[in-house]
Amino acid sequence: MHKPYQMNVINMGIDTHQEPVAYMRDDCHICRAEGFSASSRVCIQYEGEKITATLNVVDISKMPVGSIGLSHIAWMRLGVNANDNVTVTHASVVDSVGFVRKKINGGTLTESEITEIITDVCAHRYTDIEIAGFLSACAGNRLKLSEIVALTRAMVNCGQHLSWPEQTRIYDKHCIGGLPGNRTTPVVVAIVSAAGLVIPKTSSRAITSPAGTADTMSTFTNVDLTLADMKRVVSATGACLAWGGAVNLSPADDLLIRVERALNLDAEGQLVASVLSKKIAAGSTDILIDIPMGPTAKVCNRADAVRLADLFKQVGNALDVRVRCVITDGSCPIGQGIGPVEEARDVLAVLQVIPEAPRDLRDRALQLASNLLDMAADQGMESANKEATRILDTGTAFKQFQRIVEAQGVVKTLPDAGYKEAVYASANGVINAIDSRRLARLAKLAGAPEDVVAGIRLYKNVGSRVEAGDAVFTLLAASPGALEYALAFYQDNADMFDIV
Amino acid sequence: MHKPYQMNVINMGIDTHQEPVAYMRDDCHICRAEGFSASSRVCIQYEGEKITATLNVVDISKMPVGSIGLSHIAWMRLGVNANDNVTVTHASVVDSVGFVRKKINGGTLTESEITEIITDVCAHRYTDIEIAGFLSACAGNRLKLSEIVALTRAMVNCGQHLSWPEQTRIYDKHCIGGLPGNRTTPVVVAIVSAAGLVIPKTSSRAITSPAGTADTMSTFTNVDLTLADMKRVVSATGACLAWGGAVNLSPADDLLIRVERALNLDAEGQLVASVLSKKIAAGSTDILIDIPMGPTAKVCNRADAVRLADLFKQVGNALDVRVRCVITDGSCPIGQGIGPVEEARDVLAVLQVIPEAPRDLRDRALQLASNLLDMAADQGMESANKEATRILDTGTAFKQFQRIVEAQGVVKTLPDAGYKEAVYASANGVINAIDSRRLARLAKLAGAPEDVVAGIRLYKNVGSRVEAGDAVFTLLAASPGALEYALAFYQDNADMFDIV
Repeated sequence: MHKPYQMNVINMGIDTHQEPVAYMRDDCHICRAEGFSASSRVCIQYEGEKITATLNVVDISKMPVGSIGLSHIAWMRLGVNANDNVTVTHASVVDSVGFVRKKINGGTLTESEITEIITDVCAHRYTDIEIAGFLSACAGNRLKLSEIVALTRAMVNCGQHLSWPEQTRIYDKHCIGGLPGNRTTPVVVAIVSAAGLVIPKTSSRAITSPAGTADTMSTFTNVDLTLADMKRVVSATGACLAWGGAVNLSPADDLLIRVERALNLDAEGQLVASVLSKKIAAGSTDILIDIPMGPTAKVCNRADAVRLADLFKQVGNALDVRVRCVITDGSCPIGQGIGPVEEARDVLAVLQVIPEAPRDLRDRALQLASNLLDMAADQGMESANKEATRILDTGTAFKQFQRIVEAQGVVKTLPDAGYKEAVYASANGVINAIDSRRLARLAKLAGAPEDVVAGIRLYKNVGSRVEAGDAVFTLLAASPGALEYALAFYQDNADMFDIV
Repeated sequence: MHKPYQMNVINMGIDTHQEPVAYMRDDCHICRAEGFSASSRVCIQYEGEKITATLNVVDISKMPVGSIGLSHIAWMRLGVNANDNVTVTHASVVDSVGFVRKKINGGTLTESEITEIITDVCAHRYTDIEIAGFLSACAGNRLKLSEIVALTRAMVNCGQHLSWPEQTRIYDKHCIGGLPGNRTTPVVVAIVSAAGLVIPKTSSRAITSPAGTADTMSTFTNVDLTLADMKRVVSATGACLAWGGAVNLSPADDLLIRVERALNLDAEGQLVASVLSKKIAAGSTDILIDIPMGPTAKVCNRADAVRLADLFKQVGNALDVRVRCVITDGSCPIGQGIGPVEEARDVLAVLQVIPEAPRDLRDRALQLASNLLDMAADQGMESANKEATRILDTGTAFKQFQRIVEAQGVVKTLPDAGYKEAVYASANGVINAIDSRRLARLAKLAGAPEDVVAGIRLYKNVGSRVEAGDAVFTLLAASPGALEYALAFYQDNADMFDIV
């Protein structure tokens, strides 16, 4: 066809998250000729690379003639340097968006249609609007089992894979939906790997919460492991506790989940595919799913919890992995620490079996570890629980945890927060409920997880009796400003503790 | 709560279409303290005004400390001047997005839930992602009749209204989906208003097509009428032919339709609500809907056309307006001109009853005008058709058209295109089909609708016999570059004419 247009690239220094944006002058010849307008989709090519970007039209005063501006993600994906020449054309129609419309219109998608959608999503050919259309069409339990299986498989196939010696059973655990402080993973991994199970655990950093397992682990050691690092650590210790973001196990999930979160959708099928795709890509054969159930948890009632558990098992079955689900108490925070370092202190206390260790965190970790041991040896839960308890109480789990930390390359000492303030009860009573969401927000306003020392140490939990003047919690921060800011929020939200 | 943050505004000069975007430095104290990150939603306040914007985080080198950048639409809605001080906080949760989730999850929405959604959309509180979720959930015939009625009513209630003397019947017509060149509206309005019907017609400018009725009318006269202008013109002539964008009849529709178009959704319920809400807000009591049916038209088969017609009638009934639908031939372009001025020439030829006037455009206009006359007098279609033909053939319709044009304030002469090139058939045969979409694209590449003279004059249509060397069409443009550009596109797409 007519010859493509050449333009000079400019780095706009704008973070548009996952969606690449290009900026072009409103008097630009190419805009006119190609019929580009704000929100058009343009195709930008540079040497071997090719991306699709959303166009934002810019006043002539803001950009030199013949130039095209790129947002961060567009700049990175294209791999350009300032003033490189790129070609700009209309983005071609993405055929698989037709399958999205089919699903929106109530159709059932075939495996190959789902594969094409996920391939295009991974190639960054979808706009946020198109991803939102796909997710909305799949929510409301509209995905059939065959579609969830196909979606999981497609998500596995578009990312990196971990492979392990044949015949090795590879264990994993996952918790659906966060309770503040519920940092069981390091304890569970230490116990079951001490018992000989292979568990190459990858975890996320916090996105909306005050800490993820990767944030907490990063206060102990290095968590940015490559696939090769993970293999080395696992072959030395049987386990690792790494950040999943350094390996690219389910790139489709990373792209979908941001839009899903923006819509605040809790789509079962999407959730199952998201969780299982990452585990299967990591080579897992035996997966334990922890489903906390409670009024402010992701799953509110037993019927939903049971249906979700069934779905996990059926999809796992279709994809040749063993899945066990445990429905746990999700009605209140677990442990005393909230925030990366404070949760690390709880983990350490449980592993070191010190008397002050939070009992609820210990019990939850033992429950999950026992289930994994029982999946491995089919010895019955009573025997499995005895074994897990013995491994923890004899210090074997702690030694194993230290070996993992050392194998990951760095041994860190937990730092102290520079700024603290205790908060006291103003009346007598019993804590009837704690609003987990506002509690998490409080820890975030204090600086967690970016400031690893920031967060909350909780002295009272649901069911605790308090007298006026009792310390309810201590707020921790890395700067006086952040501490003050969080305290001001608390003063307006003291009813997050419902004391009756 | 803690005191809100003050920042200096900077106009970024970036057109982000309908979605307001704010730009803040990545080291900004407020970003840190509030937990803002790329794609967060922020609330910006200036004096009485308050908007919600999506945040893009910007490198420190691109923005002074203490400043916040705004995109065009954010700048305009807030009504700020450079360096004004605004306050920036977290955007509060939009409650009605919960109803969107309810719909996504398969629920049925009440009238008050739909009203709340549309009110929030109109107040620009929805992100594109949330609008996409709403539209996807409503597509696939998932809207019940009660929901479509509620949606239509909510869309009417959030915009401006036109009111007319009581007892006056107010007529309108609307065509679903565009065929290139199908510019019947000016002819229909002239005929029926000459017969005494009141028809205050508002039309759109082209968004994806080479011309809208407003583009064509703007080559004859002024179309940017305010509500007061419209009332004056209608009271003088019984009709007007105005641009709908100058009046704000269904602001919700303008916001929804852009996302709908990006998803390329053809959701029946949404379509019915969109069309009827604008007509009802304009005070119409009698509405004629033209549903072209054909392989490349919006409606492809009779069953869909009939179902859509029924839906229009039922919703109209629930909202106390009379709706008649006619299913017309949508299999090929209508008339010879494509592009604002070329379509105006066809309109003029039909109104002036010159022998060369395109027969198909004349017939279609008479069919629609007859239906409107029959709705008014219930005289039977044969008598109505005779009346319409008489009004056209006696020049009464043309005189009425001239009165309307004069009443709108300006009488323009149609300009000529500076650059033309005829395109000839290279073989003998019969035109079996014309790809309407590529034909429209060709006219747009030549510069339509921005260059009003640009477009196509078509000498052959579906069914025409052509000999090698016959002129098939002439391409018209305002600049040699645009002409060359469009010709190059045609050379690669000559098969848009299927000659057998």
